[in-house]
Amino acid sequence: MAKVVLTFSMSLDGFVTGPDISMDHAMGIGGDRLHRWMFHAGPENSIDLGMARELLAKVGAVILGKRTFDVGLQHWRDTPYPAPSFVLTHEKRDNLIMKSATFTFVSEGINSALEQAKAAAARKVVIVMGASVAQQLLDEGLADEIYIQLVPVLLGKGSRLFDHIGSTPIELTCDRAVNSPHITHLRYKVAR
Amino acid sequence: MAKVVLTFSMSLDGFVTGPDISMDHAMGIGGDRLHRWMFHAGPENSIDLGMARELLAKVGAVILGKRTFDVGLQHWRDTPYPAPSFVLTHEKRDNLIMKSATFTFVSEGINSALEQAKAAAARKVVIVMGASVAQQLLDEGLADEIYIQLVPVLLGKGSRLFDHIGSTPIELTCDRAVNSPHITHLRYKVAR
Repeated sequence: MAKVVLTFSMSLDGFVTGPDISMDHAMGIGGDRLHRWMFHAGPENSIDLGMARELLAKVGAVILGKRTFDVGLQHWRDTPYPAPSFVLTHEKRDNLIMKSATFTFVSEGINSALEQAKAAAARKVVIVMGASVAQQLLDEGLADEIYIQLVPVLLGKGSRLFDHIGSTPIELTCDRAVNSPHITHLRYKVAR
Repeated sequence: MAKVVLTFSMSLDGFVTGPDISMDHAMGIGGDRLHRWMFHAGPENSIDLGMARELLAKVGAVILGKRTFDVGLQHWRDTPYPAPSFVLTHEKRDNLIMKSATFTFVSEGINSALEQAKAAAARKVVIVMGASVAQQLLDEGLADEIYIQLVPVLLGKGSRLFDHIGSTPIELTCDRAVNSPHITHLRYKVAR
């Protein structure tokens, strides 16, 4: 079965967006800082680009929340992940074809979205966009791995990746930590 | 001048203690998980013990809050850091000599404690015990370096290290990331 991977660029204080997310600021105010590492040029960025390529080659399907779709993808009119994408929503809606992927709107809940995404991903992995979907999957024991691109900044404000996940500790194993000039790449397995 | 180093064992979700800190649970309920890495035996622990020794050799003085003193050190009747220690408090009180260190109680505020600690540390570093003192130092731009022992667990509850530090982003540089079988050692410099 396809694994579920949560992959996020997170500040050292745990934020994956800045505050006040809107159409104009899909990452929240100041949240673009978290993705700056992707846009550095030059040889000192080779570790980061290698990691990004490695991930991209693994992505077989994407699950995302409606808000991420609205403020992010719909606004950009495309997705960074060229793979079948499943949007959790309350309204029934026809599939939507963007340049890099087809979007299926799933109104039957996260388990249905996950089942469809896993089938679509086949031997690749399912990744998640949006902190609240990630939290739901973690809380229900449905996440297999967590990749963190740890950004050396304290944002002070925004949405935290790890929040509202219940108070039963979740054990992880870190099997890779790679530092680059811009960020630290951490890879965890979730214990069962 | 002696540098100020914040060094903490932190869960991936940002907690440095569990909830409900008390005399019986100085690290909060379940918070001892964060220090478990120090007590593993066997050769797979050599990276962690090497890092712990490296830090211990650097510590020239300690600043801590009154609550950390009350629930931790006073209760254990000693400190893990054999160095002059300065306790931030509101009441005047005579110095206290424990087995490994002398405690000075400072009622004139954090700047006075810092000045005394830096003088005592000389060419070594000043470290901090207690998240709220660490937050105050960060918020006032008085911290020079941050060492995180990142523990592969999501605690879900407790006190966060990086909280209440204002909403102006603080830029850092990560100059070392070392993974061991039990934790990831991260070292940051705070940008000025």
